[in-house]
Amino acid sequence: MRFLVQSSLYYYASGPSSLLCSISCARTPGQKVIRESITTSPELVRSDFRIGHERNRFTRFEIGVCGDLAIHYLASVRAVPGTMPLADADGDKLSHIDAAVIPYLFPSRYAPSDRLRAAAMDLFGGIRGALNQVLAIEEWLFKNLYYAFGSSIEQSCARDTFELRTGVCRDFAHLGISFCRALSIPARYVTVYAYQLLPQDFHAVFEVYVKGVWYLVDGTRKAPLNGMIRISTGRDASDSAVASLFGGIRGQGLFVETAIDGKAPGDFVPLYRGCLLDRGEMLYLG
Amino acid sequence: MRFLVQSSLYYYASGPSSLLCSISCARTPGQKVIRESITTSPELVRSDFRIGHERNRFTRFEIGVCGDLAIHYLASVRAVPGTMPLADADGDKLSHIDAAVIPYLFPSRYAPSDRLRAAAMDLFGGIRGALNQVLAIEEWLFKNLYYAFGSSIEQSCARDTFELRTGVCRDFAHLGISFCRALSIPARYVTVYAYQLLPQDFHAVFEVYVKGVWYLVDGTRKAPLNGMIRISTGRDASDSAVASLFGGIRGQGLFVETAIDGKAPGDFVPLYRGCLLDRGEMLYLG
Amino acid sequence: MRFLVQSSLYYYASGPSSLLCSISCARTPGQKVIRESITTSPELVRSDFRIGHERNRFTRFEIGVCGDLAIHYLASVRAVPGTMPLADADGDKLSHIDAAVIPYLFPSRYAPSDRLRAAAMDLFGGIRGALNQVLAIEEWLFKNLYYAFGSSIEQSCARDTFELRTGVCRDFAHLGISFCRALSIPARYVTVYAYQLLPQDFHAVFEVYVKGVWYLVDGTRKAPLNGMIRISTGRDASDSAVASLFGGIRGQGLFVETAIDGKAPGDFVPLYRGCLLDRGEMLYLG
Amino acid sequence: MRFLVQSSLYYYASGPSSLLCSISCARTPGQKVIRESITTSPELVRSDFRIGHERNRFTRFEIGVCGDLAIHYLASVRAVPGTMPLADADGDKLSHIDAAVIPYLFPSRYAPSDRLRAAAMDLFGGIRGALNQVLAIEEWLFKNLYYAFGSSIEQSCARDTFELRTGVCRDFAHLGISFCRALSIPARYVTVYAYQLLPQDFHAVFEVYVKGVWYLVDGTRKAPLNGMIRISTGRDASDSAVASLFGGIRGQGLFVETAIDGKAPGDFVPLYRGCLLDRGEMLYLG
Repeated sequence: MRFLVQSSLYYYASGPSSLLCSISCARTPGQKVIRESITTSPELVRSDFRIGHERNRFTRFEIGVCGDLAIHYLASVRAVPGTMPLADADGDKLSHIDAAVIPYLFPSRYAPSDRLRAAAMDLFGGIRGALNQVLAIEEWLFKNLYYAFGSSIEQSCARDTFELRTGVCRDFAHLGISFCRALSIPARYVTVYAYQLLPQDFHAVFEVYVKGVWYLVDGTRKAPLNGMIRISTGRDASDSAVASLFGGIRGQGLFVETAIDGKAPGDFVPLYRGCLLDRGEMLYLG
Repeated sequence: MRFLVQSSLYYYASGPSSLLCSISCARTPGQKVIRESITTSPELVRSDFRIGHERNRFTRFEIGVCGDLAIHYLASVRAVPGTMPLADADGDKLSHIDAAVIPYLFPSRYAPSDRLRAAAMDLFGGIRGALNQVLAIEEWLFKNLYYAFGSSIEQSCARDTFELRTGVCRDFAHLGISFCRALSIPARYVTVYAYQLLPQDFHAVFEVYVKGVWYLVDGTRKAPLNGMIRISTGRDASDSAVASLFGGIRGQGLFVETAIDGKAPGDFVPLYRGCLLDRGEMLYLG
Repeated sequence: MRFLVQSSLYYYASGPSSLLCSISCARTPGQKVIRESITTSPELVRSDFRIGHERNRFTRFEIGVCGDLAIHYLASVRAVPGTMPLADADGDKLSHIDAAVIPYLFPSRYAPSDRLRAAAMDLFGGIRGALNQVLAIEEWLFKNLYYAFGSSIEQSCARDTFELRTGVCRDFAHLGISFCRALSIPARYVTVYAYQLLPQDFHAVFEVYVKGVWYLVDGTRKAPLNGMIRISTGRDASDSAVASLFGGIRGQGLFVETAIDGKAPGDFVPLYRGCLLDRGEMLYLG
Repeated sequence: MRFLVQSSLYYYASGPSSLLCSISCARTPGQKVIRESITTSPELVRSDFRIGHERNRFTRFEIGVCGDLAIHYLASVRAVPGTMPLADADGDKLSHIDAAVIPYLFPSRYAPSDRLRAAAMDLFGGIRGALNQVLAIEEWLFKNLYYAFGSSIEQSCARDTFELRTGVCRDFAHLGISFCRALSIPARYVTVYAYQLLPQDFHAVFEVYVKGVWYLVDGTRKAPLNGMIRISTGRDASDSAVASLFGGIRGQGLFVETAIDGKAPGDFVPLYRGCLLDRGEMLYLG
């Protein structure tokens, strides 16, 4: 499937400042960026680079002038997710996990899995098989959390979400990640462009690692799994902020759009939301 | 200088479990591990690997039997720290910072620098020059925090330390790191073996990045700067835990010893503690 | 001055539930409720009572039917605040404080003064005289906190406000209370109707106890001190919630209005905002 | 039963300071203080008073001299607890609860029941009858929490205890109180002298209010219910601190002893621990 994604970020600079953006689509085996552009108004000095094991793409802007500022990203991306039948996988023993995956077992700032270990064991400890535990977690998130704008703040972590049972997409993802790690299932945070997400915005989901595959999970069930285009991947939102601001600059709003590229939207076949597809399969972004 | 370090970790396993240890000395240009050994009692299946950009060394043990368990590490290490005169460095603009260093500017679990930004600006925002800010932070930590065993718990973060003004070495380091990042100075957490530390234990300090060099800072001033042997490096204690336990296993104590290897201790010249040396220099581990 | 206050609370009940409201104006020596009424739509069984040392007025409603629900309060109130010249009062020794006041020295949920003690000492510890410390605290709140709707949530406490430097009226009050208690100045939370507050809403301020008088302080400076009509008084917002819900009921909005009763608004002379009046006096509600 | 209780508190004063103690046994209908004394070394100016609705007894000491300081309390107390058969009480509707009890339904600092509401509903929401819910809570505390000195700090609240599943008596009580309030059962914190508690120390338990009676609950099950002598009662440990320090003074240790007065200890018949007695009754302190 080929998608046309665009995002615009608006800022006001009151002095010299820097801006670190992560809005470019990831380049992975399963996701091909056919063309893309970042433009700014006014024009700014910029540098592009990649950070960390996941090679997340960042763009750094130096802002020397005061005033309004806009950043526009536009890309055409071919995303080919894969699917795997749901096996009753037992999960990987720690001894078989690739070393690079191990940090995704550790507690992190917004996903303090050590503090949610007891709750995770209470709720999901009796379920056999890592993938079955993941299915149960996804369903729990969907059924027990209330999706509400304004119910959380940037500082909210999975502890808050578990207690208050409300949040937005990033909160759903952080709690799901925490539960998984608490059960010794590696889990990581993914920011995406999401087709058919309403209202359109950046979206956050998570991936779980079982038997060598990172499966996609979205406890909000707000967008089809095969309509997601990966931006960045990390331990939690700390690693994957859309924008980090340094100096005298503040946000003024954003606009996101994810559409089918070059064909009528009717050609798109929405897949199931959540994590388990119709035919008992799970999907991975590739 | 050549050091002989050893550590012993004691556990009790009540069922199948895994143990992830980070007790081996780092191998870096400035630190040469001449010989080392890890032995366990009883003998265990183990694997060694490295994780992350900092290439931290981990050893994974699979425990299949119940009962007492001991892990012993012994190494002879040559550490050659470097020193640099304290320049009135202004700090690096974000635009000049190596991409690999950028994650050390982000808030992390135990060093939530976003929440300590206002306090850092109040205390150190008026000081000119990144290294001068670091000097002021080190002195503030030493003068304002009370070092006390039992005053913090594993879950304590820099917010707690700033509020309660008490903690142990990891708390001093987390608060120092938070202040630095809040001032846009990259900072990272280092676990070390520390000569002349009393009582002997693993020690935690931090490093700050200015003009391409990672300088060593120890707000506790409890050990000489040139008596530290690096074990691991990370964003905070989450990345650098001495041991992570999975399954039915729990700790029963530890023993650490750091000594001069092959010469009389009298040959060791203790350098200043904190961060600034006698001659107006700062030290880096190399 | 005579004020006409009204408030309307809107709910939706999905099952049997109870509602505990605190919206009636306090009856105190300095504040006379001339006439008042609470009406509901539909009609509900209700009981009125007073709680605690401060004799806060509560109304309890039993809701047996499902559907929309509205509560309207209307009152005419004569409020006669008093003023006292600002003396360089040294604060009261604990030994001279009335026993009933002592709980207002203790940390409370939203005003955890133990955790803000170090910060309070840093900022205000060097100022001589309790009233001078209060003046400095009020000014600090006004100058350092950014008033913004949506920047805090119901769970936010003074720690969050101190760190993030943003909040709404209750956050300003909680931080001010915490600072005062940390300096051994008794402080308490007051909810009020506030004339000329924009936009109109319930308002929260605080009172400090020095030499036997509870002086009024409003770090937001959003309304004149002599346009405030006391509703309830407590250790923090826990004691003074406008409404507590039990069972299947949720809020749908509210409306508040505070006006001059029976005279032209022009007759009202707003007194200074904050805490110190024009002539170097402080005001108390009486 | 007649008990002899004594406690000694040791401090070091480095300057003028005040000390607020709550170590005297409560005087209630069911608990008669036959004789008691507070002595200090050196002699200090003191005043005795009562605070709050519960009339907790406090003693205030003014310390003008530097040096070591000891406070000794000794009392002989007759405690006559009552018992009631466990009825399948449905709990009180809010409309039938005495107004004075309502504050014990509100969240408080160490018992933030709003944040534990979801967990309480998950665990106990399906159980019919308030007393049956209390029984289930007491058993859950005993079976799921690990009692360990040093596992919590003074700042720990019921959120921490629920997450980490470990604590000391005050943590057990705070979590039990939070669960009860979340289920609309009024609950309060009680500090006691406890016969047969090992090691001897001040002890904390809680009381739940059902059908007009405050029943005693001790989730630690570390002491017999009829061997407890009430000191103070409050919303949580904030209201009932054994000692609050103001000025230059710090603690140096304490000693507590609770014994049978005037008869051989063999005459004491220990009742069941927890909350439910052998014959299906619950006990209240009277």
